[in-house]
This record gives sequence, C-alpha cells and structure tokens, in this order.
Amino acid sequence: MSIHTVHRSQNHLAWDKTLAPILNIQSGETVTFDCLDASNGQITPTSLPASLATLDFTTLDQVSGPVHIASALPGDTLQVDVLSIETAEWGWTGLFPGFGLLQDEFAGDTPALRIWKIDRESGLAVWEGGEGGGTALKVTVRPFCGEMGVARGLEGKWSTIPPYNTGGNVDTRYLTAGSTLYLPVEVEGALFSCGDGHAAQGDGGTAIETPVKVSLRFTVLKNKPYTKTPHFHARNLPAENEYYTTTGVDPDLKEATRAAVRHMIEFLVAEKGLSRVDAYMLCSVAGDLRLHEVVDMPNYVVGMMMPLSVFAS
Amino acid sequence: MSIHTVHRSQNHLAWDKTLAPILNIQSGETVTFDCLDASNGQITPTSLPASLATLDFTTLDQVSGPVHIASALPGDTLQVDVLSIETAEWGWTGLFPGFGLLQDEFAGDTPALRIWKIDRESGLAVWEGGEGGGTALKVTVRPFCGEMGVARGLEGKWSTIPPYNTGGNVDTRYLTAGSTLYLPVEVEGALFSCGDGHAAQGDGGTAIETPVKVSLRFTVLKNKPYTKTPHFHARNLPAENEYYTTTGVDPDLKEATRAAVRHMIEFLVAEKGLSRVDAYMLCSVAGDLRLHEVVDMPNYVVGMMMPLSVFAS
Repeated sequence: MSIHTVHRSQNHLAWDKTLAPILNIQSGETVTFDCLDASNGQITPTSLPASLATLDFTTLDQVSGPVHIASALPGDTLQVDVLSIETAEWGWTGLFPGFGLLQDEFAGDTPALRIWKIDRESGLAVWEGGEGGGTALKVTVRPFCGEMGVARGLEGKWSTIPPYNTGGNVDTRYLTAGSTLYLPVEVEGALFSCGDGHAAQGDGGTAIETPVKVSLRFTVLKNKPYTKTPHFHARNLPAENEYYTTTGVDPDLKEATRAAVRHMIEFLVAEKGLSRVDAYMLCSVAGDLRLHEVVDMPNYVVGMMMPLSVFAS
Repeated sequence: MSIHTVHRSQNHLAWDKTLAPILNIQSGETVTFDCLDASNGQITPTSLPASLATLDFTTLDQVSGPVHIASALPGDTLQVDVLSIETAEWGWTGLFPGFGLLQDEFAGDTPALRIWKIDRESGLAVWEGGEGGGTALKVTVRPFCGEMGVARGLEGKWSTIPPYNTGGNVDTRYLTAGSTLYLPVEVEGALFSCGDGHAAQGDGGTAIETPVKVSLRFTVLKNKPYTKTPHFHARNLPAENEYYTTTGVDPDLKEATRAAVRHMIEFLVAEKGLSRVDAYMLCSVAGDLRLHEVVDMPNYVVGMMMPLSVFAS
C-alpha cells in the first residue's frame, strides 16, 4: 500500500526546522515508519533493571523523520490519518526515580524495569507477577505513537521530551489506528516525524514501550485556522463514542485545561455553527476533560473530548 | 424497597458537624432522597435567561440531609451504593459570566439559560437549536448526584460549593445507578447529605441540572483506612470497563492529580497485593487520569481510574 518507507536509523533527537528532510512526499501520500522503541534500542527483551542505570539518556525519545510534505505552508493544518500500527512481541515499562508525577515520593527507590509479553492474537500485554510472584497483570493492547509532530517555527533545537503546540510527545492514548490527528504547520513542508511506540497507556502518560511499524497518510488542509494545538478525531475506541478532541499544551496544568476548552469552543463555532456561549455550555454538559500527558516536563497535555453523537440527527 | 424518605424541604446550605440529623438509620439501610435541582427550585421549565439575574445565590447548591448512620466513627469508610436515580422531564444549563474555568474570557457576556427536554424513554436530553435556530443537540442522559458527602471533622460551616476530602460537590459523572461511592468518615454518625441532580455531564463539571429522586444504600466499613478522599467503583458505563477510582481534591490542579495517583497506589498495595513500585507503574500503563470537576472553586477533583479488567484471571 505504502510506497514510502522510513527506516529505523533515520531518526533525530530534536525538533529543528533546519534539519534536512529524509523524504519528500506529496499531500495525500502514505509513509510507513519502522521505529525503534523510546530507548533507541538500548532496552531489549532480556534487559534487567540494572540496564536502566547505564542508559544513555542523551539518545532517548528519538523520532523518525523529518518528512517534507509539498504544499504545506505556515498556517496550514497537517491531517495525519493513522492507517495501521503494529507492535513488537514485547514491551517494557521503567520506573526512573527522578522522573514522573510523583518523582519526589519515589526518589529513594531504585530503578525498576518490567518486560511485558505482547500476544498479538489475544491483544493482551501480560506481565507474569509482581515482585515476589504477586498479582499477574493483563493490559489490553491499544498501540499508538507517543510522538507525532511537526517542526516548530521557532529557531533552535527543541528537545523531543516535552510536547509542544506543534505536537511531539503528546502521549495521547486515543491515537490508535483509525484515528486522525491534526497538527498546526509552522514551517514550509511541515517536517513531520514520529516515534515512541506504546503498546498501551492510560490517560496520563507513561506506557508499555515497544518498537512499532506505523503507516500514516498525510493531507495538507488550508481551511482549519483554528487548529492551534494538536486536535484529533478518535475512532476505534471499543464501543465508546467517536470523539473530536482539542488539546491545550502548557507548563501550567490549569492553563492547559483552559486552552483545551477554548480550542473546542473555537472548533464548535467554526464547524458546527454554535454560538460561543452555546459552545461553552456544550463543553460542560457533554465534553470530557482528560489528562493526556502529565510526565513530559515542562509541558502538560489536556484534552477536551466531545462525543460526536451529540450532533447526530 | 426503601423504608426511609428524605423530603425536598429537608436540606441545608453548609457542611456542619453540629447540624441535627433529620434521619437516623442503621448500616445496611436504604434511603430515598427527593431533591430539588441546584437552584433550590428557583429555575423552572418556563424560566428565561433574565431569571438568572435575580437568582438568590445564597440558597444554591443545597443538600438534602444530614442522615446519621449508627456505628459510623471517625476513621471508618461509608459505602454508598447508588441503587436508582430518576430525573425530572426537564433540566437546565446556565452560563454565569463570573463562574467557571473561562470566567475571564466570558466576563463580558450576559447570563445565558438553556432549558432541555428530557425524554426518559429514549434516554436523551434534547435542546432544540441554538441562538438563531442553530444546531440541535442531543445528549445521552446518565443521571447522578453532583453532591454526595459527609460532614467534615473541622469546626464551622463549610460552603457546599467546593468539594472536600469528605466529598460534597465532587460533580463526578460516573456516579450513576449501579456505582458505589466510598467516603472517609470524620464525625460520629457520618452525617451524609446529597443533592445537585445532574441529567448529564462530561468530565469537567457543569451539567444539565435537574430535580432527582435517588435511592442510596449505606454501609459502614471498618477496614478501608486508605480511603482518604472519595473513591468509587464505576459500573454501568455503557460497554466500557468497570473502574475502581481514587480521587485527589486540592486547590492546586497538579497536587490534586498527584493525590489521585498516590491514593490509587495505596489502594493497589492494600487490596491487590502489588508492591508500591509496581502499583505506580500500573497507574501509568493502565490508569486514566480525568478531570472530574474544574468549576467548584477553590477545589479541583481529579480521578485516577483503573479498569478492573487488569486483574481478570
């Protein structure tokens, strides 16, 4: 299906508008990305917790790309359709004591590493028992890329760890196959990259990390100026609604929340013909505020998710 | 089924441990509460937006009770099973310019009021078109009480507007019939009250307000000392998982989020035999962080929701 391929080695460690594209495509074309996990291949199915101590942090959270999409200009929106995504047969979850929402409360702990088996047939990630042979855990596999983004308009090299208004490490669990992401374009050609495969994750932000192969179709849109942060149309949530979601990305959690709501109001006014006041009230009665990402400092990602059934006739 | 009834007039406007109970029951008994809407009956199906200007704010968000449950002592947990809940055939949503997450951005607007028709047969709340006959909206009815709580151990009268660690205005949309709420008891007899009926609401906090009749069964638990804020077991979410949820209640959104995660870790260690580190990692890979309430200042309510399918054998 896909005529373009991005290989594992074609990755970079910062968002930077001066990077040369590794691929040039037209709007409407599809690319398959073969991505290592977020440890950049340093963690393997036989790794032990001690491996975390020797991890080279300067090469983590690489992203594959950048891909230049012809006709994309600043102010446009890049539509990214997630056509398919396939995990490896294993994944890992790490506890890094200096990282995460409760980092101070776990500061005295040693690093921990859990290797999960991923059974593609049953769609489950299984971890056989906790420390001392405790409770076994089974988590439903719903794979997505933690990182999908375009270059920032600002000068300089921007770490791939925090998410930005242009996307990146948004760690949003709804971006599974079938869903569509919309990103604001800030540079000519957009310069899209992705990576950080996740087999499963809750709303919140760390995950079962895994290598992935993901196929994405890119379309340049000229008529969605209200897309100022990542928006997405979530489909394929098992038996849940379809959602259109706007996000807020900010170092302050309250401001990120306010931005997510503000952006949904702008969407509802532009696309659904609601007044600003009605849109605000609809957010209250039917929209879900969820914390998509609370670990990739300094920026949080909050989503305002609107079930599209609200507009069913 | 229920032998006890609390009538519309039996309500109060502050959490206060010195209030005399209006009803004394035993652990295991059921009570039906007949509750006016959160406007305390001031808004009716024929109200116009101008009615909001003359609303008496000092009588809003009344709660019905308090009910004294024998044998409940400080340190215990009050289990509240939501057996049934029935809305009126109408509801309202108001925009109060000085209230809510985007209050500064809507400060120049006039108050707005929308009256919804609630069709119990189809389970939909319908609002026939926006300003100027715009888009009609249909929202699935999933009724719950915005307010369920017990008296605080602290001296004084505490407004029913903010939620507290003892519950109250938690505005959590998952507390529909079939679900169970757990509240930390801080005073002898617990002194439970409820109100603020909602026909529907997203994760976030304002709603389609409606009068409700709700039947609740109360059980005193002696062995859940980790219940330091409202916890709940969410059932009857259409085709979604069952969830066990812990909450954080705090004026700082980040601290509320941290508390919700911390409380889930304590629950998983106490009830599921996980190590603290494994519990923390499980929160990351499978737990959902959702903003249950962001409008009842000064306190936010964040939920950490764990799908119970994780523990299926």
